[in-house]
Amino acid sequence: MLGLMQDWPLLCTKLIDHAAIIHPDREIVSRSVEGPIHRTTYREARLRALKLAQRLEREGIRSGDRVATMAWNTWRHFECWYGIVGAAAIYHTLNPRLFPEQIAWIMNDAEDRILFTDLTFLPLVEAIAPKVPSLGKVIVLTDAAHMPATTLPDVVAYEDWLAEADGDFAWKVVDENTAAGMCYTSGTTGMPKGVVYSHRSNVLHSMIAQQPDAMGLSSRDRVLPIVPLFHANGWGMAFTCPMAGSGIVMPGAKMDGASVYEMLTRERVTVSAAVPTVWLMLLQHLETTGDALPDLRKVIIGGSACPRVVIQKFQDDYGVQVIHAWGMTETSPLGSLCSIKADCQDLEGEALLDLQEKQGFPPFGVEMKITDDADRALPWDGKTFGRLKVRGPAIAKAYYKGQGAEFFDADGWFDTGDIAHIDPQGYMQITDRAKDVIKSGGEWISSIELENLAVGHPGVAEAAVIGLKHPKWDERPLLVVVPKPGQTLCKEDVLGFLEGKIVKWWMPDDVAFVEEIPHTATGKIRKTALREQFRDYVLPTASDTNG
Amino acid sequence: MLGLMQDWPLLCTKLIDHAAIIHPDREIVSRSVEGPIHRTTYREARLRALKLAQRLEREGIRSGDRVATMAWNTWRHFECWYGIVGAAAIYHTLNPRLFPEQIAWIMNDAEDRILFTDLTFLPLVEAIAPKVPSLGKVIVLTDAAHMPATTLPDVVAYEDWLAEADGDFAWKVVDENTAAGMCYTSGTTGMPKGVVYSHRSNVLHSMIAQQPDAMGLSSRDRVLPIVPLFHANGWGMAFTCPMAGSGIVMPGAKMDGASVYEMLTRERVTVSAAVPTVWLMLLQHLETTGDALPDLRKVIIGGSACPRVVIQKFQDDYGVQVIHAWGMTETSPLGSLCSIKADCQDLEGEALLDLQEKQGFPPFGVEMKITDDADRALPWDGKTFGRLKVRGPAIAKAYYKGQGAEFFDADGWFDTGDIAHIDPQGYMQITDRAKDVIKSGGEWISSIELENLAVGHPGVAEAAVIGLKHPKWDERPLLVVVPKPGQTLCKEDVLGFLEGKIVKWWMPDDVAFVEEIPHTATGKIRKTALREQFRDYVLPTASDTNG
Repeated sequence: MLGLMQDWPLLCTKLIDHAAIIHPDREIVSRSVEGPIHRTTYREARLRALKLAQRLEREGIRSGDRVATMAWNTWRHFECWYGIVGAAAIYHTLNPRLFPEQIAWIMNDAEDRILFTDLTFLPLVEAIAPKVPSLGKVIVLTDAAHMPATTLPDVVAYEDWLAEADGDFAWKVVDENTAAGMCYTSGTTGMPKGVVYSHRSNVLHSMIAQQPDAMGLSSRDRVLPIVPLFHANGWGMAFTCPMAGSGIVMPGAKMDGASVYEMLTRERVTVSAAVPTVWLMLLQHLETTGDALPDLRKVIIGGSACPRVVIQKFQDDYGVQVIHAWGMTETSPLGSLCSIKADCQDLEGEALLDLQEKQGFPPFGVEMKITDDADRALPWDGKTFGRLKVRGPAIAKAYYKGQGAEFFDADGWFDTGDIAHIDPQGYMQITDRAKDVIKSGGEWISSIELENLAVGHPGVAEAAVIGLKHPKWDERPLLVVVPKPGQTLCKEDVLGFLEGKIVKWWMPDDVAFVEEIPHTATGKIRKTALREQFRDYVLPTASDTNG
Repeated sequence: MLGLMQDWPLLCTKLIDHAAIIHPDREIVSRSVEGPIHRTTYREARLRALKLAQRLEREGIRSGDRVATMAWNTWRHFECWYGIVGAAAIYHTLNPRLFPEQIAWIMNDAEDRILFTDLTFLPLVEAIAPKVPSLGKVIVLTDAAHMPATTLPDVVAYEDWLAEADGDFAWKVVDENTAAGMCYTSGTTGMPKGVVYSHRSNVLHSMIAQQPDAMGLSSRDRVLPIVPLFHANGWGMAFTCPMAGSGIVMPGAKMDGASVYEMLTRERVTVSAAVPTVWLMLLQHLETTGDALPDLRKVIIGGSACPRVVIQKFQDDYGVQVIHAWGMTETSPLGSLCSIKADCQDLEGEALLDLQEKQGFPPFGVEMKITDDADRALPWDGKTFGRLKVRGPAIAKAYYKGQGAEFFDADGWFDTGDIAHIDPQGYMQITDRAKDVIKSGGEWISSIELENLAVGHPGVAEAAVIGLKHPKWDERPLLVVVPKPGQTLCKEDVLGFLEGKIVKWWMPDDVAFVEEIPHTATGKIRKTALREQFRDYVLPTASDTNG
């Protein structure tokens, strides 16, 4: 027997409709790429998104077509998302920080037909466009007055192009499982893989995010999404803010400490979200200027593990609550958030920070487990670590064109590629990437934990740990170290520093000193390159069968 | 093109799974019907619900079967809901305050197969059961020690019955549109009509409720749902609390001021929800004792319009935030909630109360409009009132067996039967029931507004306004008044009191003094009976064609 409740599909366009009707005058304030601060409202943004959808249709865009954006967070980029999904097309965010060849490969894989881009990226687009045969028009997110000369054959200023539509358009109504967005994982190994969000997953993800223990945005909040829309579905904030009726403050191209501080203050921002690097820059800026953060009540920090000092400074020095979070492009992206449960409310000082260094527990809508290599579930004891697998309505079940099938279990779990432990209260902490964990005698050693400890040595600028083949233990850790300028370090120095901080069998078998550690375009350590570099390296213990 | 996100059906059982895994030790504290306080946890509740589902299956309950409950809010009633939906059956809550014949009619309409009931209602059930041929076993929510003698032929104590299962059971996995629950509208006119909730609508309703501007429960909250589970789907709280990981405090059978205060205080309740009558009793109790409410941060008040004084006292005297809300059995039930938007944050005193007397704006997931009799949309100016129509994924599209088809538009809107105005910010205020509004010369007069004003007269105990046929104006208002004991009132007294408070053409054409106004089982004025009573009444203006 079926229920008798309304068939009301979960469509992204319902979000901007809600905001425009119930919170019509709530502002979207942006630092424009051209320079000045720009102000608009949900009512106006919806009208322009309607024009955009209408205009895209006239451009020949049809249901399921991929429309790319390579743009900063501004009101125009926000309008693009809604206009694209409103035309039943698919927004495909491109990360301009990838190598040009990677971007071209991704655009060809997705067969993007139109590209919206900012002035900033025009030279990059000029280089890429000839390599992408599917690409037609390039629409530059500016007005005619700011339109530069360009070698692109089919190009137009956004404001001119949009002005040709009157907005007399009705959103395309589609099944809620229809594709709405695409984002490729940058991936430290292999080719990028496309994640395809549906209308349903985006709406449910926002509802998941709206729970008070997750992001929990209210209509009274003014939210600064520093995390770019092109990073992991923009953490869903282009959908969650309209759902909440929150004001939005868009940082444009400027994410340095002074610029972020300026937007936080002049627009009285109450909630913000970004990766740790951005917050480190802000905190450094504040320490220099001595400024405070009177309006900011909460920051959501994810993308990589948040340093303890960032949490501590925000809370102790500025009275700002930190929500440490974990997620991936494949999880829309919210996977877990470290809010404080009732049992932990009395924690303070170091004990509180110990908890907040964890990436937190999954909200309703995300299921988690940790497993060993045989896919057996491991206990939630806060110590045992295993492969982190997740399940939920806003989590990928496959990559575009069937790539990476090995990450998806037959029973519907997605293997995150992360290694984590979970405590009895459900608080999860990432300890490593699966491909970087060192498998020594059937037990796992976390490369990240060793790296984090090693960089605590006053003479170490950067550290990386990789597993090298070992005749007896299968793999053993090699610690690769970049000494700080002018410092002379020896193996015994560094290993001595680790002693007592780790169990004995975690101790690296050797230390290699290098001038530089290879990085990806997004700043992560390229362990594949490092493993290649040390492929023929022989550990001192490797010939010693008692090692 | 479809998205590539996981097929994760929105099932009610996912809610208790989430709570049991992520918030396993969070307590459900109940005042038992037997007397003592009872404590359990989400982990334990889930295990017992699994046993219940297993046991129901052994009892022959199959997918889609209706299983009734007539019970107070306790941990056992909570378990019943999850056990029933976990067996793919349908929980059907019965309101024990209805007339026995009505309950029997409803049970026959629903063809209930099993009934869970509290000790309190056993005499009532004994009277009803012989009239319900479909009813098999009656399960009394108590243990063997408390089991009384009964004339029921097939009856068992819940704890004995449950103990026969071991809980080695997996929730039935069904399509998310499968029916999960049923609740009949009590209806002041006509026969009761069945609303059939789906798994999807219940889960989405909880996600809607979890938005910070709606109920917004956190894992740190301890929630006292005073509103009975048998009223309008229990306001969804049996689903929303586990989603949030909130503690639950169940009041059992006692809802008087002293009992509610005792639970609020001893269990340090932070959020509660009930109809205005309950709060009036609590506030009276507090005024007598001089006690305070240090832990309570928020109360959600709905079911009928909340008196201004209740809002004012909670906020000014006790520091408790009031969320005035509106909803119906047909809307799962949340339709709108009066939280304070950014623009209204500076309001205080009377201006704030003016706002809070409104039933608020719809959260994402509820669409609203007001229309005239020709179904034309009316403006949101805060003055023009019309029929309130709603749309959303947790709003009925039909009643059980196709009853009441006239309430559902072809384009998917549900006609609430309420009359309301909406202001430019989306704040809605109910002004009347459609069947009670007085249609005078093509314009509408709100019977409720007149009644609210009339009871402000110091000599008036109760007032009701009905429309009587009028040769010129179609209908004109008659004010029916119950004077306070010992008071002598005349028409001029009462109408003189209204003068200046309403526009002239709203002035009732006559006042009738009565000793009693008829009420429904749930305490609402029975205007049908009143109209019947005054069917032959002739208004003094009715013979005067200039009247």
